[in-house]
Formats: sequence, structure tokens, C-alpha cells
Amino acid sequence: MRKLIITVAQTGGMHGKEANPNLPEQPEEIAESTYECYNEGAAIVHIHARDKAGKVTSDPKIYQEIHELVRSKCKIIIQDTTGGGPGLTLDERIRCLEARPEMASLNMGTMMRVSGPYAGVPFSNPRSEIERFAKEMLDRNIKPEMEVYSHAMYRDVNNLIQKNLVKKPYYINFVLGMIHQGAVDATPEYLCSLREFLPPEVIFNVTAVGRAQLSLTTMGMILGGMVRVGMEDNVFFRKGELAKSNAQLVARTVRIARELELEVASPDVAREILGIKK
Amino acid sequence: MRKLIITVAQTGGMHGKEANPNLPEQPEEIAESTYECYNEGAAIVHIHARDKAGKVTSDPKIYQEIHELVRSKCKIIIQDTTGGGPGLTLDERIRCLEARPEMASLNMGTMMRVSGPYAGVPFSNPRSEIERFAKEMLDRNIKPEMEVYSHAMYRDVNNLIQKNLVKKPYYINFVLGMIHQGAVDATPEYLCSLREFLPPEVIFNVTAVGRAQLSLTTMGMILGGMVRVGMEDNVFFRKGELAKSNAQLVARTVRIARELELEVASPDVAREILGIKK
Amino acid sequence: MRKLIITVAQTGGMHGKEANPNLPEQPEEIAESTYECYNEGAAIVHIHARDKAGKVTSDPKIYQEIHELVRSKCKIIIQDTTGGGPGLTLDERIRCLEARPEMASLNMGTMMRVSGPYAGVPFSNPRSEIERFAKEMLDRNIKPEMEVYSHAMYRDVNNLIQKNLVKKPYYINFVLGMIHQGAVDATPEYLCSLREFLPPEVIFNVTAVGRAQLSLTTMGMILGGMVRVGMEDNVFFRKGELAKSNAQLVARTVRIARELELEVASPDVAREILGIKK
Amino acid sequence: MRKLIITVAQTGGMHGKEANPNLPEQPEEIAESTYECYNEGAAIVHIHARDKAGKVTSDPKIYQEIHELVRSKCKIIIQDTTGGGPGLTLDERIRCLEARPEMASLNMGTMMRVSGPYAGVPFSNPRSEIERFAKEMLDRNIKPEMEVYSHAMYRDVNNLIQKNLVKKPYYINFVLGMIHQGAVDATPEYLCSLREFLPPEVIFNVTAVGRAQLSLTTMGMILGGMVRVGMEDNVFFRKGELAKSNAQLVARTVRIARELELEVASPDVAREILGIKK
Repeated sequence: MRKLIITVAQTGGMHGKEANPNLPEQPEEIAESTYECYNEGAAIVHIHARDKAGKVTSDPKIYQEIHELVRSKCKIIIQDTTGGGPGLTLDERIRCLEARPEMASLNMGTMMRVSGPYAGVPFSNPRSEIERFAKEMLDRNIKPEMEVYSHAMYRDVNNLIQKNLVKKPYYINFVLGMIHQGAVDATPEYLCSLREFLPPEVIFNVTAVGRAQLSLTTMGMILGGMVRVGMEDNVFFRKGELAKSNAQLVARTVRIARELELEVASPDVAREILGIKK
Repeated sequence: MRKLIITVAQTGGMHGKEANPNLPEQPEEIAESTYECYNEGAAIVHIHARDKAGKVTSDPKIYQEIHELVRSKCKIIIQDTTGGGPGLTLDERIRCLEARPEMASLNMGTMMRVSGPYAGVPFSNPRSEIERFAKEMLDRNIKPEMEVYSHAMYRDVNNLIQKNLVKKPYYINFVLGMIHQGAVDATPEYLCSLREFLPPEVIFNVTAVGRAQLSLTTMGMILGGMVRVGMEDNVFFRKGELAKSNAQLVARTVRIARELELEVASPDVAREILGIKK
Repeated sequence: MRKLIITVAQTGGMHGKEANPNLPEQPEEIAESTYECYNEGAAIVHIHARDKAGKVTSDPKIYQEIHELVRSKCKIIIQDTTGGGPGLTLDERIRCLEARPEMASLNMGTMMRVSGPYAGVPFSNPRSEIERFAKEMLDRNIKPEMEVYSHAMYRDVNNLIQKNLVKKPYYINFVLGMIHQGAVDATPEYLCSLREFLPPEVIFNVTAVGRAQLSLTTMGMILGGMVRVGMEDNVFFRKGELAKSNAQLVARTVRIARELELEVASPDVAREILGIKK
Repeated sequence: MRKLIITVAQTGGMHGKEANPNLPEQPEEIAESTYECYNEGAAIVHIHARDKAGKVTSDPKIYQEIHELVRSKCKIIIQDTTGGGPGLTLDERIRCLEARPEMASLNMGTMMRVSGPYAGVPFSNPRSEIERFAKEMLDRNIKPEMEVYSHAMYRDVNNLIQKNLVKKPYYINFVLGMIHQGAVDATPEYLCSLREFLPPEVIFNVTAVGRAQLSLTTMGMILGGMVRVGMEDNVFFRKGELAKSNAQLVARTVRIARELELEVASPDVAREILGIKK
């Protein structure tokens, strides 16, 4: 039986409790919710920290606090965002690595916001900075998840591979349906198309923003990929019905995986698959 | 017989005579070279203006001067760039429209330069600016060529279509192999893949940067598209051999088109195909 | 919510109780099992008749008997095979239409058996016979399900469409993984690839032989198609575990459909979708 | 520079001088025309023998006669058909191997004729016979060209590879647009699609029946493949104009190849590429 790694992205850096009051923002909430997701079958938790006011922060102390609270409850793999959120600089975004997660996201290109207060402001990830982030992760033995939002981002993936700044098995997360310029839509066709251009020796993960989270993560399972669910990407459980918790989304993913005869990977099995040394 | 529209992009905004001394920079040179290309079979000339020092400029007077010189020689369709070149602002880039070309390029997304003095600087085309440029072209009866560098840019294409900011037949130029972040490589696979996601009622054009110009424009002919050649995209005629002139590149394209039993469209035939009113 | 039509193919013409003792062969068994499948959510039953010895037969009386038994229990749509099974001639295979099903399968090309007693014997469906079968269905107001086993079969689909021998909405069943020469493997890649070449105004259904039945029917749901399950295509419920009944396979399909927020179509809803007049 | 192997298929087994009086049928004609094609740049000649009446024959003596006449003129690679033509049995079709060509075609599946006197008659290539033909070629050190008319035929390709009945580099000829059931149309989309499913370590060749010969062989060059032209596949030079000779078709292919900066492979270079020992 193929083993499926489930990541839960609980919080994100874009919306908060105003979008869904069940979205965890504070360290205790995040840790509590992580534990529920772990109990349902999540192997990795993708973390965005917020300050006391619920605003996106890059403060490594808050990341550290979240890590400790999570680790006191379970052995789930902690993956911090280095994408941060609107308003954070690249120098700020990299600081979470000081909190020593096992994994971290690594955004593979520059995009531009199209609406809201940051419309027209680039989400900047120049090649030189991608290399700096990758090197920092390599030095700290942090496994990067390369975030790929469109075909154009394979160039920076291949650049990191060629420069040995990432280790096998390479781990790519397709993020489909992000509203920024530079991302492709969350459709089955784009998922298939992105997969066709994958470099060799890559494990891929599927993230889809909005309603397609359900269908495209299921399709990801069938195509041999891993999946990510959670309120960062989709605050609804179904049309018109807000998710009660991140765990509710994880639990559905596990039910579908089991119907499809997949085994849900524990954190230790996920570490083995991804080549993460404890 | 299918009719093939050939565009020549003679100058560009990135490199100059240092890359190929035969690249035309000054208005007289551009007009002279345009006339040669027209005689070989080009129906559209894509224009980037330079100042006396050969530096990229958005000065509408220089565009105007080029237009007049070109028009005094032949009836080729004049298409000005609104992409400009490094260092120009969006407000500067749009100014060439004052010179009233029949067509203008319209870049469909934001990219980021990866090397050289502008590394890390975005080539900024936010959605709101794309809409502004499109509206300006619509108001002035200038036919836009939508420049698509990756799949992600279809969103802004579809946005313009939905808002009726562009007219049928929509005209898209695939620009493959641009070195910026946000562009896909110049390969047959990416050309086919981009074509799969085209919206309906689009005429597409193929531009490929570097050595792939030859093979991908030929493939574009076979796939039912139009083609662009010229020193903006490729300063070589073949490996190790600089192009003697833009006309040399156009002449080869015409030879290949004729071998493939395509008819080369005159400027007036091109106007008819693209729905450009004289 | 999108409505999903589930077809159950319970018996088939290739294997029998020796492969799974729960596979229904006799009219009473078929009708009883159909009723269970209907109760679980199947809208269409695909029927292959067997004689008293369990051998494939084209006897319209047996088809008639099955129809009556099924209709006495429920309003499920009856779809008879015109593929029959090894050893039946084309003239025999068409005879089930005398029993007046609402639908019938229509095989869109010739294949060749590769193993067993019929190895090297073609499963013959010449163009002229496909046209004859289609005309007969048209005349009797029987909705054809066009069985497509490979890309090559689109030619005969298009031939029928051009000759107005089939009515809109055209209904195509992708049969993936059939062991005959002339069929493609049951992989996600072939499912996507076949879908790319679909003519317009087609509703497609996904059938996959063997273990891929589970994953490819699920993928079919996500891609906007309908699905077929049952012991004709796969006698196992999961690896190493024979299906207890056809209804068990239908029930799983319904559970997955509901997880994916699809509504399961009743027979009457299916009739409406497929344009079948009662 | 990439080296392009050009095969000329001069005669075929379907039509003859009634379709184009310049189509060579008799041994002297075939040899004379082969020599012209060799002089233009063909590295392989694909041979179908005809009897004195111009009818398809499998007589190894006629093949032998053709071989001797060809070899007396030039060192072109001789590839005999084992597809023969309508009316020949498998036992007859294999007999040309007695004439010891360097290569032979090997049809990878069963198709069915759709029109003419053989409509409804299968072009039979059962798996067991494909294996027998492959083994015979292996034993006689004859390089097979595996003829693939649709995606479904990859199964028999993979079967031969798995059973070590073919040697690396595997050589596949895509035959697009054959009118038989079981073949896909001659379109760029099908060429790209077939290429996506190629097994590893394959050199592919492109053959297209009818008018698409010109465009699809050119596309094959760009996609990294080899090409076949000639009157077997297309008797016209351009719309409404019969080919004057096979050499005329080869010469155009060479002109296009040179425009595309490809080197035309001599027979010895082709032998090296294909692993043919002299």
C-alpha cells in the first residue's frame, strides 16, 4: 500500500478569524489544533505565526513557542513558512529558521498581489534570495518544501538542483489557485500539466486554494502525490459551510485516502519518505 | 493555403550593438532595416526606440520619428512595445501610444529579472496597469498583442476578455525562453502545453528567445500560429554566426513557410486577419 | 451539486463464478443483484446474459427475462451489451436489441484477444457494422453508450456523429485496461489523454479493468465524468479480497462520491441527463 | 548538430501507378529511384515488392533481386516491409526476411480495413506473431522498426522489450493517419500525444499518411525524431500536384532539415545511430 503524507496548513498569512472563527492564530490554539490534526492523521503541520493582535509575524520567539507547545503534545513534523505574509521582508521571513523547524517552505518565484491593500506589491522571491534561503536550510538541516505556483517556477527548482542546494528526494508542493499574478488556476488540467514537467526524483504534494482543495487533493492521491489541507487554503468544509476545525478537513482526507486503499503515513514514516533525520 | 503573419522584432530593450553590430538602434537604421524586412515578407514590425546613446527610451517623439520614416517607405504594420526596457516606469512605457501605432504589445504579468544590473527588480505589470494599458489601446483603436510568458498569465488574458477590454480576434504572443523569473523555457513541450490552455477565438504568435527561435517558430507554423523573428529575441543566424540583418532572419522564415506550403501574409492581409482597420 | 451517474456492470462476458462466486450469472441472480445495486445508488445496469450453463449467450429471450425481472423490482436503466463475448458473431450480438433495452453498448473498433482460447481471434467491429448497430439503436430509440478503448476509436465516434447515427448528448465510455490488443492501459495518464481528444457535447463515463477501477473511477468523478463499477471489470474489492457483491462496489463508489460532494443521480435524473425518453 | 535519418518509402502495398505513374513498382524502377533518393540524402529505403503485374508479393526472390540492384548502386540501408499488403498471410509476410535486409518493419498491432475490397478484413498482427517476427529478426540480426499506429500499440512494444526480443536503441515509427481502424489521425496533437507515452531509450521516426506528411515530418525533426517520406504514404508533392519522384520528396525534406540546422545522416551514420552492424 502506498503511504500518503498529509500536511495540515492551519493558519496562513492572508486571512484570519474574520474568515473563519475556528482558524487558530495564537500559539496555544495552533498547538491544540495541531494535536487534533495529528490524531486524525496529519504527519506535517505547516505553521504561520501571528502576534497577539492576530497579525502576521516573523518573530522567531513566537515560532519557538509554537514549536515547544506542539512538541509537548506529539511528534508531528513541524514545517514553518518562509513565505510569511504581506508586509514582511525577505530578511524577516527567513528568521523562523532560527526556531529550527524540521522543514520549511521555500517559495520558488516572484508573484504579485492583485487585490486588497497589497495589490500591485510583489511577493518577492528573487533567485538570489531563493538560493540564500535554500542554503540556510541546507546548513541547518531543514528539509525545504519547494512551493511551485506555475510552470515558470521549475526554472528555480532546477537551478537549486543544479547547484546542489537541495537534497534528494526533492519535495515540491504544487500550490494551485493562489490569487496572485504568477499562479495558475486550481483545475485538474493544470495539476496534470504541472506534473508532466516535474524533474526526476521528486515527491510532489498538492495544495489547492478554495473549493478545489477537496477534488484536487483527491486527484493528487490518485496521481501518486501527497496532499495538504487546512484553513490556510480553504476555510469551508463544503459549499456554504465553514470548517469546524482543521481536524475536520484532515479527517475527511483520511477517510478518502482509506477508501482509495492508501495508508496514511505517520510522522516517522513521513520522515523516512522525505529523508528527514531526527 | 493558410496565411502566415510574420512579425520582425528588430531591436528590443535588453541588448544592443554590443551583442550584434547589425542590430538597428537609431530611427533611420530601424526604418531602413524595416524596409528590408518588409521586402522579404514581414507584415508587422515590433518597435523599441532608443535614444541617441542607444539607451532604451519611451520618448513618443522618437517613436513618432520612427513611424514616419517607416511609413515613408512601406505599408508594414507598426507595433510599438509597451514593455519598454529596464529602468522605464509604467507611466513612461505607455507613452509610445501617443505616437499612434496600429498595434502595441501588452505584457500580461509581472516577472523578475534574474541577472545583470536589474537582477531582483520586477518587470512590473500589475493587473490594474494591464487594464489601464488595454483601455488606452481600446480607446485609441490600437490592436494589442498580449504577451504571454507562462501559463499563469492566462488569468490576466481572461480578465481582459471578461471585461471587454480586448476585441476579437484576440491576439496572443507566446514569448518562450525569456530569462526572467515568471517565464517558461523555450521548448516544444512548453509551446504545446501553452497552446492547450488557450481561450477560444485567439490567434497565437510564437516568439522564442535564443537558439530555439528557429525551431519553435517553425513548429508554430505547423501548429497553426503566426511567428516572430528578429534580433530582439536572437542575435544569431545559426550557432556561432551572428545574423547579418533582421531581413536575413525574415528571409529564412519565409523560405521555411514556403516549403511548408504556407502563404506569407502581406500587411493588408494581416490587417484583415487581425481585424485592424486602416 | 454535480450529478453522478453510476453504472454497474455485474456479469460481463469473459469470466464467471470461477473468478468470483458472487458474480451473478442467471436471470434471477442478475435481477436480485441489480436491485441491491439500485438501492445503493446505481442508475444504470449493464447486462450480459448467460445460458443455463453460465456460457455467454445472445438469446433475446434471456435478455427479455432479465429485463422483466429487473423491471419488476425497480426503475433502473437497463443497458444491454452488444459486445457479447467470445464466440458470438455480430449478427448474434445485435439480437439483444430485440429485447428493447433503454440503452445498449456500442463498441467503437476492432481489437484482438491476446491470450486464452480466443487468442489471435479478433473482437470484430468493422465500421460498417458499427454503423448498422448504431442505426438499429436509433430506429428503436435505444441510447448507445459508445465504448472507446483507445484514441484510435475516436474516428468511428466521429463517423457516427457526422452521419447523424447518434444523438446528443453523445455518451462515451472509456474502457481502460482491457487486455485486448487495441486497448490502452488503465492509468491516470491515459484517462487524461483520452479526455483531451473528446469531441464536443460528449458526456463521458469511466470504466477501468482490474485494480485501477477504484482510482480511475474516482478520478473520473473529479474530471467531470460518470463512472462504472462492477465485477465485469474487477472481481476484487481490494487487493487479495474478492468483492462480496456488486452492490458492495457500488456502495463504495457512492461513499466516495458523497465525500467529493457529488449528488448520486437517480435513474430518472440519469434519463434526463442522457436524453432518454421514457 | 543533430543528425537526421531520412527513410524513403517509395512503393507501399496499397496503391500503385494508378495513383501516381511515377511510383516505382518493378525491381529496376525501385533500384533506380532508390539511387536518386540516396543521392538526395535518404539513409534508409523501405521496400515493398510487387510482381510483374504490379501486385503486392512476398516472394523473397523479388526482394533479393531488389536488394542486389540497390546494393550495386549505393550503400543505403535496406528495410523490407513485413506488413506486406492486403491478401498476404503472416507466413507470407515474414518471407522477405530470407532476403536478409538490414532492417525490417514490424507492425505492433492488429487493425481493420475500412474501405475497398478488403473492408472488414483485419490487418492481423496478433501478439504471438509479433513475437515470432521479432525473434526471427533477432536471430537474423535484422533491426526492427516497430510500427506504432496508436497509443494502444505500446503494449506490444513493451512486451517485446520485456522479453528482450528487441535490442537498444529501440526504434519506433509513428505511422499517423493510416486509414485503418486502429490508427490515429495525422495531427500535431496526436504526434505530441504519442511521443508523451514513449518508453525510455527509444529513437522515434515520423510517418504521416497524406497531406500531413510535410508538416508532421517537419514537426518530427523539431521534436527530436527521424522522418520518413515517399509515395507509399503520399503521392502528392503539394495540393493538386503529384510528386515527380520519390527523390523530389526526399530533396524537400533535406532542404527543410538544412534550414533547421540539422545534419542529414549518411547510411553509415544511420547505422551507427541505430546500432546496425555491417
